[in-house]
Amino acid sequence: MKDNSIGIVSPQLFTFAEDQQELVLKSGKKLGPITLAYETYGQLNENKSNAVLIVHALSGNAHAAGLSEGEEKPGWWDDMIGPGKAFDTDKYFIICSNVIGGCQGSTGPASLNPETDKPYGLEFPLITIEDMINAQKKLIDYLGIKKLLTVAGGSMGGMQALQWVASYPEMICSVIPIATALKHSPQQIAFDEVGRQAVMSDPDWLNGNYYGHGQPQKGLSVARMIGHITYMSDESMEKKFSRRLKDDNYTFSFSADFEVEGYLRYRGDSFVKRFDANSYLYITKAMDYFDLSQGKLFPENRNVDMRFLVIAFRSDWLYPAYQAKEIVQQIKMKNIDATYCEVKSTYGHDAFLLEIDEQTHLISHFLNNVYEDVEV
Amino acid sequence: MKDNSIGIVSPQLFTFAEDQQELVLKSGKKLGPITLAYETYGQLNENKSNAVLIVHALSGNAHAAGLSEGEEKPGWWDDMIGPGKAFDTDKYFIICSNVIGGCQGSTGPASLNPETDKPYGLEFPLITIEDMINAQKKLIDYLGIKKLLTVAGGSMGGMQALQWVASYPEMICSVIPIATALKHSPQQIAFDEVGRQAVMSDPDWLNGNYYGHGQPQKGLSVARMIGHITYMSDESMEKKFSRRLKDDNYTFSFSADFEVEGYLRYRGDSFVKRFDANSYLYITKAMDYFDLSQGKLFPENRNVDMRFLVIAFRSDWLYPAYQAKEIVQQIKMKNIDATYCEVKSTYGHDAFLLEIDEQTHLISHFLNNVYEDVEV
Repeated sequence: MKDNSIGIVSPQLFTFAEDQQELVLKSGKKLGPITLAYETYGQLNENKSNAVLIVHALSGNAHAAGLSEGEEKPGWWDDMIGPGKAFDTDKYFIICSNVIGGCQGSTGPASLNPETDKPYGLEFPLITIEDMINAQKKLIDYLGIKKLLTVAGGSMGGMQALQWVASYPEMICSVIPIATALKHSPQQIAFDEVGRQAVMSDPDWLNGNYYGHGQPQKGLSVARMIGHITYMSDESMEKKFSRRLKDDNYTFSFSADFEVEGYLRYRGDSFVKRFDANSYLYITKAMDYFDLSQGKLFPENRNVDMRFLVIAFRSDWLYPAYQAKEIVQQIKMKNIDATYCEVKSTYGHDAFLLEIDEQTHLISHFLNNVYEDVEV
Repeated sequence: MKDNSIGIVSPQLFTFAEDQQELVLKSGKKLGPITLAYETYGQLNENKSNAVLIVHALSGNAHAAGLSEGEEKPGWWDDMIGPGKAFDTDKYFIICSNVIGGCQGSTGPASLNPETDKPYGLEFPLITIEDMINAQKKLIDYLGIKKLLTVAGGSMGGMQALQWVASYPEMICSVIPIATALKHSPQQIAFDEVGRQAVMSDPDWLNGNYYGHGQPQKGLSVARMIGHITYMSDESMEKKFSRRLKDDNYTFSFSADFEVEGYLRYRGDSFVKRFDANSYLYITKAMDYFDLSQGKLFPENRNVDMRFLVIAFRSDWLYPAYQAKEIVQQIKMKNIDATYCEVKSTYGHDAFLLEIDEQTHLISHFLNNVYEDVEV
């Protein structure tokens, strides 16, 4: 274990108490009881003023840092969270929770429907990013935190961070949306829709009632392969694979000739083992519904006193930098303080997981300033 | 019918004569007899010096212009081919043939295997762009044409045009590769591979032996949907669809909420009706194998005396302009004359089918010059 790791961590569960058992969703439907899986790292200070909420992307989970018992691979943002890291656990109390609709501890379509005692499947109501944040807010309340020092995340995590601004601006001192957008463009919707069609076209999907029969493996694998292409850049693929063959010659068959083909198949197959196909449908749909453009980022007649650090990556073509600039534009129109940085990365959208040095530099400095002002 | 249409056209078939019945493929396997479906427009002049070969893209066919009997929709490049158009049928004799491996008249995996009297299916040998051109060459020989005024095409058509340079440089006066590349990048291979996986994951694919049972509709539809996203640009999708809904509100279901979703589903469904799934596999694989980089464009010790017009489109992210520049670089290194034009289109890769005015201007001028020199 590296010196700057937070070591072994354990997931925790929070289920909404009886008196607030149900959540009224954006669709008008009710969902409950709701359990959120979450992890925390570092110590909450006496003033409860050092809490940082980390929000995850499409396939992420509550395990953002440290090592789970018996696992070798650390959490998905371990390079960013720990002693002396960007989100410094010696200073801050870090919270990360799995979104509702997910499949990694929080209530989602694979959870038991209390009305039927069977997994929800498609009985699970459609959710939005706003619903995710409304559930998260109950966790923050439960932890006794009145105001978060920051909410930070990449991709769909960035959308969640922005939704905190729109839903609970009084509860946050700052926001760090990374590689994200105020709304999905038709191209982003299109990629999500093709992924969903791949899943729903698989006869093993069984109209969502596949629990106990095994996943719609092939469809979900194809969906993930599409996703992976969009997470990388043309340049990063060239660097990683170029046209290298798996064997010396073309096979003149439909097996994987090129390394990139083998890689995609592998990534598709391994995703199927860890992610629920219905969650893929629900969460991508939530991203597609998300739209805080045209002034919807800042709710009317509410006090908005916060700082922004908006980060984009030059080679990210899934969430291009112009979308980050649209966020900045909205903020500036409100005369709110925003720092914008377009990192010269070649990693594409994956850069938010890989460009550690640059993000550490930007975030630790920004957070430090926010924290100093809060403590004064 | 518009005045500048060439009117009703009929497909023709050419089957290799007995003495040259088989084609030895790049893989070493033999294929034969081979039939090519082709169409011609305009008149071959006495010198046989006004012949233009049009080569089609992945899902294209021999019906490039005019109207087929009983059909309302003209050929796929009708705006470019006809009296007074870029490929002026008053001056030139235009030929377009369906590639081998295809499913629109030429021998492909859906054709009868003479050895079994059943459709080939996966018994059809893997083919390359070079094999396609070797078959086309026999058609040009059969038509008695010693030298083509030009070979022109977009996307995979551009690859075929470039392969003519590599295979039969003595037979061409000029080349017009459009929206194409010397080789597929790993990103291009990746998109093709995901499309193939979508097809092959469909249980109705039946390992390629689905003839008589119906197509693997869902898999092929997903493959086509992926393709369509890559053919458009972020900007053209924004213009065409933005986030417009099919109905007034979100459905909070997995039906198509957004117009872009409905459009993709429609395009996927209609493709299934006209294109053979196995042909999709074979032709995308041929594109992935294609590689004329690193000097392979010009064969050694062969006379190369031709002119190039290379066209790219600024918003084409599937075949980005840098790939067209790589073609130009190869040409310049041989001290050969090349005109390069990057058209400021927002249509993405589809621009080669849609940017008619600009291409007409470039091509008619270029072709006119080539023809004048030939006739002198």
